[in-house]
Amino acid sequence: MVEIREAITVSEAVDRVMNYKKRGEIEEVSFHECDGRRLAEPVLATNDVPSFHKSPYDGFALRAEDTVGAASGKPVQLKVIEHIGAGILPEKEIQQGEAIRIMTGAQIPKGATAVEMFEKCVEKTVDGAAYISIEHEITQGQNIIEKGSEIKEGTPLIEAGTRIDPGVKASLATFGYSTVKLAKKPVVGVIATGTELLDVDEPLEPGKIRNSNAYMVCSQVERAGAEFIYIGTLEDELESSYETIKEALRKVDILITTGGVSVGDFDLMPAIYEKLGAQVLFNKVAQRPGSVTTVAELDGQLLFGLSGNPSACYVGFELYTRPIIEYALYSNRPYLPRIQAKLTEDFPKKNPYTRFVRTYITYEGNEVLVHLAGMDKSNVVTSLARTTSLMVLPGGTEAFEKGDLVDVLLVDSFAGQEQF
Amino acid sequence: MVEIREAITVSEAVDRVMNYKKRGEIEEVSFHECDGRRLAEPVLATNDVPSFHKSPYDGFALRAEDTVGAASGKPVQLKVIEHIGAGILPEKEIQQGEAIRIMTGAQIPKGATAVEMFEKCVEKTVDGAAYISIEHEITQGQNIIEKGSEIKEGTPLIEAGTRIDPGVKASLATFGYSTVKLAKKPVVGVIATGTELLDVDEPLEPGKIRNSNAYMVCSQVERAGAEFIYIGTLEDELESSYETIKEALRKVDILITTGGVSVGDFDLMPAIYEKLGAQVLFNKVAQRPGSVTTVAELDGQLLFGLSGNPSACYVGFELYTRPIIEYALYSNRPYLPRIQAKLTEDFPKKNPYTRFVRTYITYEGNEVLVHLAGMDKSNVVTSLARTTSLMVLPGGTEAFEKGDLVDVLLVDSFAGQEQF
Repeated sequence: MVEIREAITVSEAVDRVMNYKKRGEIEEVSFHECDGRRLAEPVLATNDVPSFHKSPYDGFALRAEDTVGAASGKPVQLKVIEHIGAGILPEKEIQQGEAIRIMTGAQIPKGATAVEMFEKCVEKTVDGAAYISIEHEITQGQNIIEKGSEIKEGTPLIEAGTRIDPGVKASLATFGYSTVKLAKKPVVGVIATGTELLDVDEPLEPGKIRNSNAYMVCSQVERAGAEFIYIGTLEDELESSYETIKEALRKVDILITTGGVSVGDFDLMPAIYEKLGAQVLFNKVAQRPGSVTTVAELDGQLLFGLSGNPSACYVGFELYTRPIIEYALYSNRPYLPRIQAKLTEDFPKKNPYTRFVRTYITYEGNEVLVHLAGMDKSNVVTSLARTTSLMVLPGGTEAFEKGDLVDVLLVDSFAGQEQF
Repeated sequence: MVEIREAITVSEAVDRVMNYKKRGEIEEVSFHECDGRRLAEPVLATNDVPSFHKSPYDGFALRAEDTVGAASGKPVQLKVIEHIGAGILPEKEIQQGEAIRIMTGAQIPKGATAVEMFEKCVEKTVDGAAYISIEHEITQGQNIIEKGSEIKEGTPLIEAGTRIDPGVKASLATFGYSTVKLAKKPVVGVIATGTELLDVDEPLEPGKIRNSNAYMVCSQVERAGAEFIYIGTLEDELESSYETIKEALRKVDILITTGGVSVGDFDLMPAIYEKLGAQVLFNKVAQRPGSVTTVAELDGQLLFGLSGNPSACYVGFELYTRPIIEYALYSNRPYLPRIQAKLTEDFPKKNPYTRFVRTYITYEGNEVLVHLAGMDKSNVVTSLARTTSLMVLPGGTEAFEKGDLVDVLLVDSFAGQEQF
């Protein structure tokens, strides 16, 4: 008896899942442990930048007014009264006829109204004292970077949800964020179903395959910014599977199962959702691969029933689970970036449903090209190793040809997109 | 006294550094700990895929020859003698007039020469025994995925140097790579120089700034795939700085210092290279920012003297240090991907030297656009937080305009490129 399921569109499925989106709890994490995570609050400038008037060059701080009338052949001579490096505070105040030797980044001494570069001054020693002579007039304020001229204290600099990369790290350091507010990583339980599954360290047996989906999904969970708990493999047996899943739900924020959602005789997930009292949000989507992708909800907790087919499983995670995770991490762009690219080979299949094809992109000039990652058999796990994008061919379309512009979702980008 | 240095081109500088490239030592790492690292050896298929003849559908395994002559209104009837799920071995051999109920992924039973889907068979029970009736002829081999039809044992699947992402993980699992051969992460020491530097948790003081470069570089080191040791901050004092650096060189594969490479009075790195007996590969590059970037070599060990200016420091790492690290990790594409993009705003400055501008890219249609990440003052640390690419404007060029095509290096991509 084949159960009849009603297929919904991919965007309807995304919406049904995202109805349950919520922001994660916030935790405070050491600056030294925050790489690759996402900010839960915006970063503000905690001080003016620069926080003092400073010199952009190695040179001499002086009073511009002392150079009035200076010209070629008519030098003014200034006495060098101090010598300061970056980080050393000037001790003296410049009086008329005086200058202070100053290094890049150093604070402008009191009394100075300009800086002139080494190259434009002539240094000399008179009676053991250092002097400079200058044969041109200098403008008030020349070569002084004023306090707050780059950024005023309190300015918002980086928005919540931004992933912490080296450039963000530099800002956090500059503004003294010794701890950073981040969303706690959602904990995602991963369970593989199927009696045919061997573990990665087991030798092959007739009729069996090694479990690749669960580990692939764990890796996708981490890429999305969450934490995984690999719960294990379930045999195709209802009662024990039900107990394991019920127990797992107590330990995780989100539960992913792979396999068991189809309409085969050993596909137990539909019965398990029913026994749990979970509300099935959908169990058929007009997409290939992954039409049997199922999402259920129990007291606000989401259960993702991904297909046991590796490509379908991969696609299901990226389409439905990843945005929930990224939203929990305060991203305002939780969806995969969708761009257009030029197809580099014919794709002659018809697309009765929206098709997601394993692809990778390259660039030529400023055009984006998209290439098939391998044979488009949904059971070819190895082409996933070359996949950095998913080509989206809308349902109801005919064959696509080399040179056609197609939509592409970028799976290895952290840029995100506001809408699906 | 300003020392006169001779500037070399960026590509000459890259070449001088890459003369010292070497592959890293190989270590064997658990499958469970390999995410985000790079393969030191290619991944091979350790078995045929599939490793047995298997069914792509839920249906019935049967002898195609038994359906000869079947047609609408002229059914053949087959007795269902067994029922097998994926991972369960068929116990019986199909004889004439028999069929076995079989699930997706299950091994084809002996004697069967084809599989027919549930939907195309009519199931019935006669005297308590299960039968199917079929009203069409079936071709030999139909719906049987043959052993090795996807991949033959021994086929190279993923090349050395590939970064391990979820798709690669799936292949490693499928082929039983319970341990994976990876290059040991190069250990990169990071030292900041400058008396003006405060740590991230210290309150601002007059004349001082917080150290952002060192932490930014540590984060860049990790992004490139290496491991950092943050050694600390040096005061502008020759003897103690020399001792610290000499000691550090014993503990690391590569040493990065930030600051102290210019020609200011407190720039100690040139004297330290001399005292160490290190060979300076270059100390001036025709680029902005980062013209003072210095690389030295001592007994095959590289010392990167990056500028103290945050942008220059960032650029120097990405141009010169990152490819050395990625090559050590067995990448054959150790350079940043260089693409072209359409400039979205005027950039009126002249470019006496090759200029690297902090930018980020977006897409419109299948075109790549490039945007300035912020004010292009080399001291504006915050624009680095938006930087995902570096726009390259060749030396000797004039103002660029909105709509111009420009070269762009992608810093947040792991795709790499063979040539600089």
